[in-house]
Amino acid sequence: MTGRPLPRCADEELGFGTVITDHMLKIEWNVERGWNHPMILPSGPVGLHPFAHVFHYAVECYEGMKAYVDNNGSVRLFRPEMNMQRFRVSAKRMSLPDFDGEQLLKCIETLVDIDKDWIPKQRGYSMYLRPVIFSTTPWLGLTQCAEAMILVLCCPVGPYFKSGFVPIKLSVDSKYIRAWPGGTGNVKSGGNYGPTVISQAAATANGASQSLFVYDKHEYVTEAGTMNIFFLIRNEQGVKQLITPSLKDGTILPGVTRQSVIELSQQWNECETVEKMIPFAEIKAAFERGDVLEIFGTGTAAVIQPINGIVYEGKEYKPVVPFDDSMLQVRLTNFLIGVQYGDIDHPWSHVVPPSTTWSKPM
Amino acid sequence: MTGRPLPRCADEELGFGTVITDHMLKIEWNVERGWNHPMILPSGPVGLHPFAHVFHYAVECYEGMKAYVDNNGSVRLFRPEMNMQRFRVSAKRMSLPDFDGEQLLKCIETLVDIDKDWIPKQRGYSMYLRPVIFSTTPWLGLTQCAEAMILVLCCPVGPYFKSGFVPIKLSVDSKYIRAWPGGTGNVKSGGNYGPTVISQAAATANGASQSLFVYDKHEYVTEAGTMNIFFLIRNEQGVKQLITPSLKDGTILPGVTRQSVIELSQQWNECETVEKMIPFAEIKAAFERGDVLEIFGTGTAAVIQPINGIVYEGKEYKPVVPFDDSMLQVRLTNFLIGVQYGDIDHPWSHVVPPSTTWSKPM
Repeated sequence: MTGRPLPRCADEELGFGTVITDHMLKIEWNVERGWNHPMILPSGPVGLHPFAHVFHYAVECYEGMKAYVDNNGSVRLFRPEMNMQRFRVSAKRMSLPDFDGEQLLKCIETLVDIDKDWIPKQRGYSMYLRPVIFSTTPWLGLTQCAEAMILVLCCPVGPYFKSGFVPIKLSVDSKYIRAWPGGTGNVKSGGNYGPTVISQAAATANGASQSLFVYDKHEYVTEAGTMNIFFLIRNEQGVKQLITPSLKDGTILPGVTRQSVIELSQQWNECETVEKMIPFAEIKAAFERGDVLEIFGTGTAAVIQPINGIVYEGKEYKPVVPFDDSMLQVRLTNFLIGVQYGDIDHPWSHVVPPSTTWSKPM
Repeated sequence: MTGRPLPRCADEELGFGTVITDHMLKIEWNVERGWNHPMILPSGPVGLHPFAHVFHYAVECYEGMKAYVDNNGSVRLFRPEMNMQRFRVSAKRMSLPDFDGEQLLKCIETLVDIDKDWIPKQRGYSMYLRPVIFSTTPWLGLTQCAEAMILVLCCPVGPYFKSGFVPIKLSVDSKYIRAWPGGTGNVKSGGNYGPTVISQAAATANGASQSLFVYDKHEYVTEAGTMNIFFLIRNEQGVKQLITPSLKDGTILPGVTRQSVIELSQQWNECETVEKMIPFAEIKAAFERGDVLEIFGTGTAAVIQPINGIVYEGKEYKPVVPFDDSMLQVRLTNFLIGVQYGDIDHPWSHVVPPSTTWSKPM
């Protein structure tokens, strides 16, 4: 435990991702010796050779998770095994070394346990966890990875949007394309995100907060900012459907919240749950029929993000269901938050054991 | 000047990109104060906040240049203003701060002058220069850049392929797609490169050294590994053409060597010089007619890389012109190397003045 604790701030002042906790997990790898012992260290600067591949070739991928404190004071994670599985898939796509997901989760649990006093206890607040792996290979040729590092960083966070559960507007971006078949849209690599910052600025210029990314001449819908997207619509036959882009073409991140919403919608069976390729024209036609009922984004940071408008070619389209507690997205949010904070007993919520052995090499 | 010079090795032991020289240039930026004073420092680890955007979101782009020593002992760069211009375009696409390219070039000249003893003098050897800019913004939200850093690193290098001017084989990769319209293929961002490492491994498995990237169902040819690509063919009308993918669709890096080859080919006027979209089927048909005369890649590291075979769907296709000094690619190489080392007097070669003022803020 560090003897120099870092400064804290009041929960209300927490933004998203600005405050780091006292400790971080660091695990180094090299091609000759494999993974070194995991270390939990005081949080501080990461010093790398200036040739390190992460600075030049974006050989990096990450995860996003959250830790919550329940009413008994226990710390809980939400479906963390899904994050570990996806982290391994991302690392493989980026030619980064594989690791044991269960062992890494044990290390993360120990880190969370050590810094659990940092987790804000109010509803809507939590501690965001950021596992990241990158290549530290110290030469300038674009080669297979020879050295790498996993870091896990902790960050107490307030509601993703300070104003709380407030709808945002999207703007369809058909100029900057986030992902395409054969690319990396289905993994959480850094290179999927940096090039989208320019699109955020364009969205703001259109009076929206985030871009709705599409691709191909059919303008297939992919993601909304850094979130997956769902539409609750009535189709042309009048059948109520919750639709979201399919994972099949490799452009969509298989979000943990996305998967949870799909599973809940299937269980609740209030409508058909459909994963498919969605040309934006299909959504536009549904808007024009008055058949777009609800829209929302999903992601670890925001959980569920209401969307109350989409700007397309200068025109704004709006869902028809007025915002109240009976909406599907509100009930999904309440259920997910209930599970995350342990108010609802559910296998998706994973209680972190108070002490975990972690000093063994991975 | 550093009091602790770094270890050197014999020219013959130099690979590509493993040895760093004594000094590096570092210039920091933040959104409130703009660019800070450029600093030339002893080369050493770069320490960043673990939240720095470069580790997570690949907000980074780079350049590649080379410094040569001529027969008078002067240091020369090759068309460096083109690198500065492209570096600014890349930074803009990645929402990184703009800078004055002429001032940066002056800083680079000073750095090169300070470390000029590191430049190997043998033909085929040079000092590779790596300007890189990345976001050091220290929070986890994917936001506009608030803090950034330019580094310029120097690295004495031998011939890119140790065996010298030896042809390599490519393997067409239609599974992993390097770039697509609306993406970042036309800028030198890190995220274009990391995801291609997996494809290199596939190329090796096919008995090739590098992948030939294509995209779309038409399998438009884009790039070969980290190089632009040229084909010298006879078209269906029997007209000799030097063809290379066009910059129009935004998937192709506007390489400095690429542009130089195009200009030389136009001046020499031995064949038509054509930039266009190239479906691989067109190349395959030319192979089948015996009309593919020469193939080569271009890039700063390799200058011109002969290619003597392309593997496509399990079959290898070969150009028909036997390898000798009369080949277009050999004459292009000799000319370019002659200019780069100052043996041929040409405006593309830029002599670095021995002392440059650089201590002013950018």
